[in-house]
Amino acid sequence: MTKKTMLLLTLGLIFLNGQANAENNTVPPAPNGIELPQHYKNWRLIGVSHRSDNNSLRAILGNPVAIEAARKGNTNPWPDGSILAKLVWADSKHPLWEPATVPAALKHAEFMIKDSNKYRSTSGWGFARWLGMEQKPYGSDASFSTECHSCHGKAKNTDYVFTRPAELP
Amino acid sequence: MTKKTMLLLTLGLIFLNGQANAENNTVPPAPNGIELPQHYKNWRLIGVSHRSDNNSLRAILGNPVAIEAARKGNTNPWPDGSILAKLVWADSKHPLWEPATVPAALKHAEFMIKDSNKYRSTSGWGFARWLGMEQKPYGSDASFSTECHSCHGKAKNTDYVFTRPAELP
Repeated sequence: MTKKTMLLLTLGLIFLNGQANAENNTVPPAPNGIELPQHYKNWRLIGVSHRSDNNSLRAILGNPVAIEAARKGNTNPWPDGSILAKLVWADSKHPLWEPATVPAALKHAEFMIKDSNKYRSTSGWGFARWLGMEQKPYGSDASFSTECHSCHGKAKNTDYVFTRPAELP
Repeated sequence: MTKKTMLLLTLGLIFLNGQANAENNTVPPAPNGIELPQHYKNWRLIGVSHRSDNNSLRAILGNPVAIEAARKGNTNPWPDGSILAKLVWADSKHPLWEPATVPAALKHAEFMIKDSNKYRSTSGWGFARWLGMEQKPYGSDASFSTECHSCHGKAKNTDYVFTRPAELP
């Protein structure tokens, strides 16, 4: 079997496995109808950050479309189909190494989904967030995403995305 | 095809694909003979941290054995076969959001490989580090790992590992 055949079969089986699991999702959708992306905990790394204005540590992961774009430097604009996941933890001091800030409780997982047609009114991105370990949808109605879109306007020159993919060998 | 069969086939093909790529590795081994683990950039997330004593941001990733252990809370001790990867970047301020610290240049990628027999003299862990984007092996001879092991002695009660897996839903 060639390397390419194996890779294609692998991707196909990952897709089928994802489909088989989709029916197990019991987390409610966001008020704008966006469903929690499946398997986001298994996505690959795009970057990390630490915010001192709200004392949180973040990991930014991407679905396969986003990872391919990030690793090729093809992120302005990000291609349709990209999904960025940001996992946000309250920060705390490491008990054995005081100058190290490490994750405490999970605050939320939030997502940006690129579809330049479907999400035209919010610059091509669908926004959604689920709070805490119970994954409670954020926002009381569909208008919550204007809050996300408004703040991300600051990053208009990088396709409304604050994250710049971290350097990797 | 059942979900379990698909998952097993997927894992098998990922393994074969890894084997096919192994011959492409051109990065020199560490002075203690440890080879750079293949595909570590595609490993899944265990945690993140920010150190103010050396101004660096970190992502901690794990190979499949380590991820299974982390997600089951089975990390004291970590099982043989676990590999932890720590990617370390110099930190910088986000140009659009001053209180956000984000990755600048890659400083190094470092690894802990659990094999309680092979690495008995360093508490069951093999240590290795490669510097920068050029992935230059760290250390002038095999004794460099006594430096790693000595510092990790502080974390003896958590199997010599500082990282505690971040909370995930």
